[in-house]
Amino acid sequence: MKKYLLLSLFLLFATGAGLFAQEALFRSQQIISPEIQETNRVTFRLLAPNAQTVQVTGDFLPTVKIESPRGMVDGPGKADLKKGENGVWEFTSEPLGPELYNYSFIIDGFTTTDPNNPFLIRDVASVTNIFIIGGGHADLFKTNTVSHGTVARRWYSSPGLGMERRITVYTPPGYENSTDQYPVLYLLHGAGGDEEAWVSLGRTAQIMDNLIAQGKAKPMIVVMPNGNVIQDAAPGEGSLGLYKPQFMIPKTMDGTYEANFMDIVNFVESNYRVKADKASRAIAGLSMGGFHTMHISRFYPNTFDYIGLFSAAIMPREDATSKVYSDIDGTLKTQMENGYKLYWIAIGKTDFLFDANVEFREKLDKMGMPYEYEESEGGHIWRNWRIYLSQFAPRLFQ
Amino acid sequence: MKKYLLLSLFLLFATGAGLFAQEALFRSQQIISPEIQETNRVTFRLLAPNAQTVQVTGDFLPTVKIESPRGMVDGPGKADLKKGENGVWEFTSEPLGPELYNYSFIIDGFTTTDPNNPFLIRDVASVTNIFIIGGGHADLFKTNTVSHGTVARRWYSSPGLGMERRITVYTPPGYENSTDQYPVLYLLHGAGGDEEAWVSLGRTAQIMDNLIAQGKAKPMIVVMPNGNVIQDAAPGEGSLGLYKPQFMIPKTMDGTYEANFMDIVNFVESNYRVKADKASRAIAGLSMGGFHTMHISRFYPNTFDYIGLFSAAIMPREDATSKVYSDIDGTLKTQMENGYKLYWIAIGKTDFLFDANVEFREKLDKMGMPYEYEESEGGHIWRNWRIYLSQFAPRLFQ
Repeated sequence: MKKYLLLSLFLLFATGAGLFAQEALFRSQQIISPEIQETNRVTFRLLAPNAQTVQVTGDFLPTVKIESPRGMVDGPGKADLKKGENGVWEFTSEPLGPELYNYSFIIDGFTTTDPNNPFLIRDVASVTNIFIIGGGHADLFKTNTVSHGTVARRWYSSPGLGMERRITVYTPPGYENSTDQYPVLYLLHGAGGDEEAWVSLGRTAQIMDNLIAQGKAKPMIVVMPNGNVIQDAAPGEGSLGLYKPQFMIPKTMDGTYEANFMDIVNFVESNYRVKADKASRAIAGLSMGGFHTMHISRFYPNTFDYIGLFSAAIMPREDATSKVYSDIDGTLKTQMENGYKLYWIAIGKTDFLFDANVEFREKLDKMGMPYEYEESEGGHIWRNWRIYLSQFAPRLFQ
Repeated sequence: MKKYLLLSLFLLFATGAGLFAQEALFRSQQIISPEIQETNRVTFRLLAPNAQTVQVTGDFLPTVKIESPRGMVDGPGKADLKKGENGVWEFTSEPLGPELYNYSFIIDGFTTTDPNNPFLIRDVASVTNIFIIGGGHADLFKTNTVSHGTVARRWYSSPGLGMERRITVYTPPGYENSTDQYPVLYLLHGAGGDEEAWVSLGRTAQIMDNLIAQGKAKPMIVVMPNGNVIQDAAPGEGSLGLYKPQFMIPKTMDGTYEANFMDIVNFVESNYRVKADKASRAIAGLSMGGFHTMHISRFYPNTFDYIGLFSAAIMPREDATSKVYSDIDGTLKTQMENGYKLYWIAIGKTDFLFDANVEFREKLDKMGMPYEYEESEGGHIWRNWRIYLSQFAPRLFQ
């Protein structure tokens, strides 16, 4: 009976509603792609009867060597889909290990998204499809049946920058109905990122929910600010409207962000139930955010007990005019003398910032400044940053 | 000097980082599309040197008649892009009126997204690009430099459904630092939607921020639940993982949602600073959500003072077994006798549910049940639902 009613409704909608909006579904192909087999092979499908060639590319395929201005580097592999009689192209991968993967289709040389997979992530200006092979560390990236924290997009006032700015805040399960004071991790994005990067590409909410549920991380607040001081919010979310995001954004590495970072800390500490002390503050960031983390933590040298540099864009600032960069070695020394619980540096073996990190560690060694070092496979990729967060968060506030 | 440093960094990233992840940008075409001209003409561009034909389709183009199972209906128009010598295809529209528009490209017959526009909205399983022409009512859809509310994705416990469920909650500017008690609008999505629909397709946060800033709407909390009782969360956000969303979802119109709706009200009223009285509760929904709104508001006939039916999927429930549908006329009469401030019905002239709404209004007329009626142009589309919200919200809690 219910079935009959649902069917009636379906027909009513399907025949009556035209092809717009809510009814966009009826336009879509009734094809499942990607389909994860029990063997963890993944089948990709695309209906494209007129195409001459269809390929899939993504980080689930073995890398290939490609030409670049600095010689041959690793690039994403490609695989050919095979055309079936029904116009549906298909490719099935080798069995894949646990990971969150991304991919795109290439149709007659044109790179585009999979119309049958609505799960997309934006990285700077590029949008790719994603899928997850569970198991192992990748189970941390899934929404499991555990207690969930809250993810809020709020706006805070930055007196230093003279604007209202958007910020993403994860509060752990139970926060709202507790009277506890919580520690805070400030988690910073890289160049071209924004306050959406860590929750979308980084799966922060899922990782934290799962680590907390497993008893591996302390319940903590994770604050994900926007490090691009000329924006009030991520592209499309702020007063600049909808525009094509850029990788290099002016004023991201000139000291302005670091010099005004206390606006964020003050906002958090006056708007959340937090422990406002050094022992309860951590800061970490990837790439440019690792650069920001290094500079913020030494510019406010008695503020953070936990510091995480993920593939940090360590680079010389001798030319910079900001007071933030005026006495790097001196403030590092002060930071060391003030003490901290953990200074954690992680980078991939093939990261283009590897040498810069070697050099930075040599500086720290020479100063006698203690740190822990984690060297992973791979390069400058989100896959590593998700794992670094999974490794770093359990070390905090213990 | 700063420029020099940024350039160095850019080169470092550009040459060193390979083609993955954060560096995905370098793969993308340096093309602007769509480009909104000063005349509000919009230029669409696509680099596709190998394509034979490129078209754009979307709701910014005049509709055309297309065949359907119930005869000729309005369908989205198409326009041809013209190929330039550089392999870039281009089309410029007529001057467009204020609106949030969606579009897709059709490359050699294959419908896909615009790789130069990362602003996408998912509607059920389909993803299309969007752009906004400002001015008039469409300025409500923009993030303007006004005070902004907070949008939180939280999880609440539904004892009735026996699961933790995800919910989207908009709290108005100033909520966090106020001691005021706020009224609440429960805003329900349509079939195939979820707790993401009203904030993404519906631009609820922008509309509410702007109406409140203009003094046209009272500061209120807007609660956007998930109406699909078999899901804990939107596709990709819950324990069911990543899967292809469907338009018709089991148990959405069998009374289960309505019968357990007080779990949501109880959660809101015990977790937010709200006025927990009838005068401070509103409920509205689109399509299936309008159906839910009609049934919830009469099943709990002394609970809501404001009721909004947006293109409501009014349809007979004589066959249904749920107690929710057991005495529709009687509970409507009770609701009428209990009184309410506003019963607001809106629908578009070409909506396929138009006749069902005529019939429903005839029933109300016959009963002497008061309501206000708004008839708009157009059909069963988000464009109307955004406008209905803009019209309904200012009427609440005055």
